[in-house]
Amino acid sequence: MKTRAAVAFEAKKPLEIVEVDLEGPKTGEVLVEIMATGICHTDAYTLDGLDSEGLFPSILGHEGAGIVREVGPGVTSLKPGDHVIPLYTPECRQCKSCLSGKTNLCTAIRATQGKGLMPDGTSRFSYKGQPIFHYMGCSTFSNFTVLPEIALAKIRDDAPFNTSCYIGCGVTTGVGAVVKTAKVEPGSNVIIFGLGGIGLNVIQGARMVGADKIVGVDINDSKEEWGRRFGMTHFVNPKKVEGDIVQHLVALTDGGADYTFDCTGNTVVMRQALEACHRGWGVSVVIGVAEAGKEISTRPFQLVTGRVWKGSAFGGAKGRTDVPKIVDWYMNGKIQIDPMITHTLSLEEINKGFDLMHAGESIRSVVVY
Amino acid sequence: MKTRAAVAFEAKKPLEIVEVDLEGPKTGEVLVEIMATGICHTDAYTLDGLDSEGLFPSILGHEGAGIVREVGPGVTSLKPGDHVIPLYTPECRQCKSCLSGKTNLCTAIRATQGKGLMPDGTSRFSYKGQPIFHYMGCSTFSNFTVLPEIALAKIRDDAPFNTSCYIGCGVTTGVGAVVKTAKVEPGSNVIIFGLGGIGLNVIQGARMVGADKIVGVDINDSKEEWGRRFGMTHFVNPKKVEGDIVQHLVALTDGGADYTFDCTGNTVVMRQALEACHRGWGVSVVIGVAEAGKEISTRPFQLVTGRVWKGSAFGGAKGRTDVPKIVDWYMNGKIQIDPMITHTLSLEEINKGFDLMHAGESIRSVVVY
Repeated sequence: MKTRAAVAFEAKKPLEIVEVDLEGPKTGEVLVEIMATGICHTDAYTLDGLDSEGLFPSILGHEGAGIVREVGPGVTSLKPGDHVIPLYTPECRQCKSCLSGKTNLCTAIRATQGKGLMPDGTSRFSYKGQPIFHYMGCSTFSNFTVLPEIALAKIRDDAPFNTSCYIGCGVTTGVGAVVKTAKVEPGSNVIIFGLGGIGLNVIQGARMVGADKIVGVDINDSKEEWGRRFGMTHFVNPKKVEGDIVQHLVALTDGGADYTFDCTGNTVVMRQALEACHRGWGVSVVIGVAEAGKEISTRPFQLVTGRVWKGSAFGGAKGRTDVPKIVDWYMNGKIQIDPMITHTLSLEEINKGFDLMHAGESIRSVVVY
Repeated sequence: MKTRAAVAFEAKKPLEIVEVDLEGPKTGEVLVEIMATGICHTDAYTLDGLDSEGLFPSILGHEGAGIVREVGPGVTSLKPGDHVIPLYTPECRQCKSCLSGKTNLCTAIRATQGKGLMPDGTSRFSYKGQPIFHYMGCSTFSNFTVLPEIALAKIRDDAPFNTSCYIGCGVTTGVGAVVKTAKVEPGSNVIIFGLGGIGLNVIQGARMVGADKIVGVDINDSKEEWGRRFGMTHFVNPKKVEGDIVQHLVALTDGGADYTFDCTGNTVVMRQALEACHRGWGVSVVIGVAEAGKEISTRPFQLVTGRVWKGSAFGGAKGRTDVPKIVDWYMNGKIQIDPMITHTLSLEEINKGFDLMHAGESIRSVVVY
C-alpha cells in the first residue's frame, strides 16, 4: 500500500512529506493507522545527527496513537478497529527481562529494532524501490505503519488520539518514573530538575501519589507557571540562588529530598540531583539522556551514607500492561495532558514542530493526521 | 576508676599500653568491661593518619564485645551483667532517621561522636589529667569503656566474646549488606570484589540467603581458598583474565550479576562492580571506603538501562535490633566466624595485630583482655 509519511532522508535536513510504499503485516505483525503523533526531543536528537547509531533514510516518530487496520498471521491479542499506542519498549512477556518481574526493558526484538528493522530483519517501508528504516520500532511519522504485536498497547476506545499519543513517550516516562521506578510514597518530598515536558509529567506524577513538597528546578523562570499548573509547590531558579544549589535544596527539603529526578540530561545536574537527596534513604532517578561520552560522578561516600542512584527508561512501565492504565488515569482526571499539548499541526507542518521545540516554545507539539 | 588501654597518642606511632583514668557512666550511659575486640582496617586508617578527621590522643577500637558493669541514671534497657556489643552506629529509635524505617544511620549522637566526645560534649577518658578522645563512640581498645545506652546491643549470654566481637563491625557489614541493604533473593547471581574480611562475610551472607553463583574477584590467588570456604562458587583473578574484566564477569553470570558488592574501596573497581550488573535490574552496593577525594564515575546510560548504585554502612543493620539476630545466626551455625579469627592476641600484642593486617597475613586479629 501507499502511505503519506515524513521521511528523514538524511541528518540535519528537514523531513520531506512523500508517499512511501508500505508492505502489509507479516506473521506476528500489525498494520496501524496512526491518528496522531507527538514530536519528541529524541526524534530531534536523531534528526540532528547527534545519535551515533541513527540510521537514514528513516521514518522517525515514536509517540503515537492509532487504530489497528489489519493483523498478520498468528496475531491473537489485537484485531482491526482496536485502538493502540505503539511501544518503543515492547513487552513480549516471555524473555528473561519480562519474566524477571524486575524491569520493563524487554529484549525480545532489541537487536533488530536497533538496526531500524522489523524482527525478521527487513523493513516494511520503501521509497522508489529503496528500503527506508523503521525508527525505534514505531515510525509514527507515517500515516500507516507496521509494528510487532508485542509493541502495541491496546487502549480504551474513548481516549482522544491527539492527547493520548503523548502517553506513548513523555507522559509515561515522567509519571512512570514516579510511580514505577521510584515508587514515591505519599508525604514524600520530591525535587524535579528540568521543567520541560518530562519534568512536568514527573510533577504531576508526584502530585498524583500524594507527595508533600514538589520542588521544581529550572534556569528559566517562565517554567514556574507551568510547574505550578501541574502540582509544583516550590520553584527554584539556580541562577538566582546565592551559594550552593545543593545546600539550598537540602535546606528547603529539611535535610534533602526523599526522591529527586533529573530531566535535564546534564551530567552536572545529575550529580546535584543525587547529592540533594536525604542522607540515609534519598533516591535519585536519572531520566534525561546525556550527551554521548559524558559521565556522572560523585564521591562514593554519598552512596555509603544511604543515597541511591538509579535510572528510568520509559518510566519503568511495561508497555502492554501499564500504558492502558495510564490512559485510564488520564481519562479519569488523575493526570492531565490537554494543557501540555501546546501546538497541533498537520503532517505538512511537522518541521515547524521541530522548530518550536528547538526554540523552547512548545511543551508538546502533536501532529494530527 | 583506672583501666588498661592502648592509647593512640599521635598518628603513625604504635599504640601505647597504659593505665588511663575512666569516669563512671553519667545519665543514659553504661560502663562496659570489654572482653574482646577485633582490629579493623578503619582503626588502622585513623592510626595511619589517613582520616582527616582523626583525633589524637584517642583510644581506638570499635569492634568489641563485653559485659555491662554499671549503668548511669535513666538507663532502662540494660543492667549489670548483660552481655553487649558496642555500636558505632547507634539506634536511638527516636530520631528522624530511626523513625523513617528506611535507614540504620541514626543521627542522635552523630555530632559529638564525630568529635570524639560523649553526647554531653565531654570525654570520660583521661591520662595524667589530660582528656583522651573516644573513637567512633566505642573505644574498645580499653578494657573498660563508657558508652551511651543507645550504642549497645544486648546479646545472648552464651555467645563467646572472642568471636562475637567481630559482629560489632566486619560480620555485620558484610552479611548485612547482603541481607539488609541488597536484600539478595534465593537463586541470585552475586559478584564480590575484594576477598578480605568484609568480602568473605558478603560471601557467607550470600550463601545463607541461597544465592546461586557466588563469584569472588581478587587479584590475590591465595584468597580463592578462603572464598570457597565460606560459599564462593567461582573465583576470578582479574590479572589472569584476557580482555575486559567486566565483559568476562557479565559472560560468567549470564548477562551480568543480580547483585555486586565492592569490598575494595577502589573507585575503579566500584565502577566495574556497577557495570558487571545485569541490565534491567542489577544492583551494585559500595561497601568499601574510598581514599579521600576519590570519585566514582560511569555513563548515565548504565543507570537508565536499569542498574542501581547504592551503598551500605554497617550492613544497613540497626544495631540494637539486628545485631542480636546476627549473633543468633552465628550461634545457630547459619554463618561462621571462628575460622575468620586468624590471630588472638593480648592487649600488649595489639601493635602486632596492626602489623599482621598491613602485611595481609590476617583475616581478623582479635585482642582478648
